[in-house]
Amino acid sequence: MAIVTIIGSGMMGSALAFPARENGNIVRLVGSPLDDDIIDFCRKNKRHPKFNREFPDGIEYYQISELNSALCGSDLVIGGVSSFGVEWFGKNILPVIPRNVPVLTVTKGLMDTRDGKLLTYPELWQKMDERNRNVSLNAVGGPCTSYELVQHDHTEVAFCGKDMEVLEMIRNIMETDYYHISLSTDVTGIESAVALKNAYALAVALTIGVNQKERGIDSELHFNSQAAVFGQSMKEMKMLLDIQGAGGLDNLAVGVGDLYVTVYGGRTRQIGILLGRGLNIDEATEKLEGVTLESLVVAERVGRAVKCLSERGLADLGNFPLLMHVYSILVERSAVCIPWDSFRFKNV
Amino acid sequence: MAIVTIIGSGMMGSALAFPARENGNIVRLVGSPLDDDIIDFCRKNKRHPKFNREFPDGIEYYQISELNSALCGSDLVIGGVSSFGVEWFGKNILPVIPRNVPVLTVTKGLMDTRDGKLLTYPELWQKMDERNRNVSLNAVGGPCTSYELVQHDHTEVAFCGKDMEVLEMIRNIMETDYYHISLSTDVTGIESAVALKNAYALAVALTIGVNQKERGIDSELHFNSQAAVFGQSMKEMKMLLDIQGAGGLDNLAVGVGDLYVTVYGGRTRQIGILLGRGLNIDEATEKLEGVTLESLVVAERVGRAVKCLSERGLADLGNFPLLMHVYSILVERSAVCIPWDSFRFKNV
Repeated sequence: MAIVTIIGSGMMGSALAFPARENGNIVRLVGSPLDDDIIDFCRKNKRHPKFNREFPDGIEYYQISELNSALCGSDLVIGGVSSFGVEWFGKNILPVIPRNVPVLTVTKGLMDTRDGKLLTYPELWQKMDERNRNVSLNAVGGPCTSYELVQHDHTEVAFCGKDMEVLEMIRNIMETDYYHISLSTDVTGIESAVALKNAYALAVALTIGVNQKERGIDSELHFNSQAAVFGQSMKEMKMLLDIQGAGGLDNLAVGVGDLYVTVYGGRTRQIGILLGRGLNIDEATEKLEGVTLESLVVAERVGRAVKCLSERGLADLGNFPLLMHVYSILVERSAVCIPWDSFRFKNV
Repeated sequence: MAIVTIIGSGMMGSALAFPARENGNIVRLVGSPLDDDIIDFCRKNKRHPKFNREFPDGIEYYQISELNSALCGSDLVIGGVSSFGVEWFGKNILPVIPRNVPVLTVTKGLMDTRDGKLLTYPELWQKMDERNRNVSLNAVGGPCTSYELVQHDHTEVAFCGKDMEVLEMIRNIMETDYYHISLSTDVTGIESAVALKNAYALAVALTIGVNQKERGIDSELHFNSQAAVFGQSMKEMKMLLDIQGAGGLDNLAVGVGDLYVTVYGGRTRQIGILLGRGLNIDEATEKLEGVTLESLVVAERVGRAVKCLSERGLADLGNFPLLMHVYSILVERSAVCIPWDSFRFKNV
């Protein structure tokens, strides 16, 4: 039995309370500074406001003002902030975590640098504050929507971190008969794979909107065009992973699974469909007001990085026609016009 | 303008009449010996009985008894038989096709040999009859459901064959603004990729049935478990393509796109769901009486080939837990019990 402290009571952080608690651990769910109402709600209803299933018995709820008590004696800290909370987490939380307590972060994303590198959040946090170099930073990747994890749908994820022994320890705390965990010391590989899929999930969803525009919103779903973009997405993701020095098959499989679940289970689908229907990015985000669209941020960053690498002669934009189209939709407000012919190949 | 003769008036053969005719070619649709009623129906209604959209004007319909007239002056023969018509096509049609007329076949599948090799249908036909060695055998792979092609949904496919000039010629005849065609001389790669996905589309669909069994037939779709199996599928497909000597990224992308469309648009989904709900293979096929289930045949063959290769020390069954589970469901009537933990990896 371990003490697990989850910081950030968004959907994914809160969902991890289920396997953690069902494994018999002591679980403390701490809201971020924006989560006071959520924690009040959880305390009162034993349920997260966005889940239709009650938490397992015995979870303890903390406001951020009670962070010190929540961290006291903790064996594992789970970082459950969205990518908009990355800075807060790196500046305010990580530096106060005791050196011997490992952290497992669920935040998916990458940050681009001026010279076109794509940094993982663990790398970013270490750059942000010297003290974070002392923290054991581990991360979760893989296809997992929070509301399905809560329902015990079988879920395969990968935990990554530098130290395999620490990863084994965290897996022992978290693994259940429905939450299946691979382990990898290739942090860049896993983190890149699951961040890169954002632009591509949006791209697959575009085809749904394009069809709706042409045939009506209630028209049948068409899969030929979705599948064409899905295949092209896999191809571009593999080449981006190669650029990251992380083109191994396991990384790609984690990314492709995550792409699949994001096309179907995620908010990125909604924005992709709206764009495909002909709304521009401002109109589409306005229509989805209040929805967290971190995927757009990541898609922009990855596109910008690849453009930068191309200018430096380190990447060939011709290999990424889909990414570049998504980038121009998001950044240059271009109309959707999927570059079908550029997906074609000719192999002799 | 070319003369295109399509032999086999199933859905896929008939669907190719659309781009062929819309490009201004003369198109002759010939029924197989089982298709007399379909051809009668097409002549009378200008529509295929399984499509809800009429053929373009000007298509000519032929019974198999009129084959000679249909082949007269033809520039391209499209083979549109299902995998159950492979032998008929190889023995009765290919040998009578004039030597200078290329063939493009849509039949997807592989045939296993006693020593665990997986042959493409072009290879099989050449073994079947010496005369077939003189025919230019080309094939179509990629994600394409016939009823969506007919609706002009954007579709990306790959034509493969030994001679790039012939492929270019066929593409000129067939390509439209919605039917996008890659070209490859790697016949084994393209044909293997699109055949291999059969076992895996079934596997992804199993998870839908498993969830329905547990939560009710009308329960919400769950994507975590689908995505987990999809990622594992991609991984196993890549390793199978490697065994075929065809592990290039384009081949894999064609296969993954085809997997995606088969999970959603195909009949394999139906049988996978029934199996996942707990029916055995006999009960499931009985329930789908009349539905062509060529994917089951291919899945069995691929599973058998990998087992054989493993016995010969040429493949590691441990790399294919999903394929082996599908194989044991189909052949040994095993109950569905997805081997989640065997999908996990540990990379140091």
